[in-house]
Amino acid sequence: MIGGTGALGFGLAVRWSLAGVPIVIGSRSPERAEEAAAKVSERVRGAGGDAAEVEGFQNEDAASRAATVLLAVPFRAQSENLNNLRGALRPSSTLVDATVPLAAAIGGRATRTLGVWQGSAAQQAEEMAPRGVAVVSAFHTVSAAALSDPGKALDEDVLIAGDDRKAKDDVAALVRRIPGLRPVDCGELEVARILEQLTPLLISVNKRHKIKHSGVRLTGLE
Amino acid sequence: MIGGTGALGFGLAVRWSLAGVPIVIGSRSPERAEEAAAKVSERVRGAGGDAAEVEGFQNEDAASRAATVLLAVPFRAQSENLNNLRGALRPSSTLVDATVPLAAAIGGRATRTLGVWQGSAAQQAEEMAPRGVAVVSAFHTVSAAALSDPGKALDEDVLIAGDDRKAKDDVAALVRRIPGLRPVDCGELEVARILEQLTPLLISVNKRHKIKHSGVRLTGLE
Repeated sequence: MIGGTGALGFGLAVRWSLAGVPIVIGSRSPERAEEAAAKVSERVRGAGGDAAEVEGFQNEDAASRAATVLLAVPFRAQSENLNNLRGALRPSSTLVDATVPLAAAIGGRATRTLGVWQGSAAQQAEEMAPRGVAVVSAFHTVSAAALSDPGKALDEDVLIAGDDRKAKDDVAALVRRIPGLRPVDCGELEVARILEQLTPLLISVNKRHKIKHSGVRLTGLE
Repeated sequence: MIGGTGALGFGLAVRWSLAGVPIVIGSRSPERAEEAAAKVSERVRGAGGDAAEVEGFQNEDAASRAATVLLAVPFRAQSENLNNLRGALRPSSTLVDATVPLAAAIGGRATRTLGVWQGSAAQQAEEMAPRGVAVVSAFHTVSAAALSDPGKALDEDVLIAGDDRKAKDDVAALVRRIPGLRPVDCGELEVARILEQLTPLLISVNKRHKIKHSGVRLTGLE
């Protein structure tokens, strides 16, 4: 979990640890990573679950310890993180990109996005990742706050895009480990450019309706 | 209903007529408009409802007869239609734009969109509409086929964007007339650039899951 000290990474780590999925949290500083790992463990123990282990390491160390690496960092930090991770990502690993190119990255509104030359943040990630790493785009519409609170029931979809079927299946299986989340394969990685727009859409809906957390559920799937 | 001879316009006309909302269908040819109106009436009678009147007129005649004008035409016909409608749209009227800039307009894929200089088809409509006309963007995620079949139960949201609160409320009220549809105000008209991406997203989901009709439902709203 690169960016595991951030809100989305923290929330997902809480839910997965609760579900028995071992988590390695990465941060630029190993101390902050360990601190975040301890905080996740504490939150999970508070929920009374049988928690899987949560450890904290410096980003590259963390990434090299897992077959699935989730990038949950602000857009302005995405390139730097991917540069640093180049040596740590194995050709067989899966990189899950949850980055959203919010205009907030350059001081703009969180209800707007920036155009990314490659089409989407996920496609930028694919361009920067070592050859052979499968990039999957996901987790743009789940609320970090809702995930972080194990008492909060979830009932929504996680929309997934990617070109590698096996990698998508693996991510879908991870999503299913969290009660109340349903994975939905939305197609090829290029669809990420639409998925990444859903975050500002939900931010706009939250603002308009004065609610904390809207999500997406697709209808018509069995 | 400009483009009432097309699939989406036809489907919405069926549902609204069934719900007691009088509909005027527009087409380039008055004969085709009358034909479509007769087809809608027939479909509605078949459903056994107390249908509101459905009439057919040439586009400009149709538009001048209604306070709310819905534009449901292919993207490549949007500009021409708006040019022709200039004289027919009153400054107090509401223009509901359901146009989606699918790349299919230039022979590309229906899972991709074209970039529109103004940001979205709805914003292009606002630029072209006479001053004072309130533009509302909506109806990108409801399936024309599902709407056209009065026997099919609906259970999904209609996402709405626009700068004029009153016009959005009017459109929301029209949406509520159709059982199973819930209007959700998603913010300012600029959000249309996100809403218009949801059509290719659902087309991609339909393709991937071999289903005919997926839709969107937001969670977290009461």
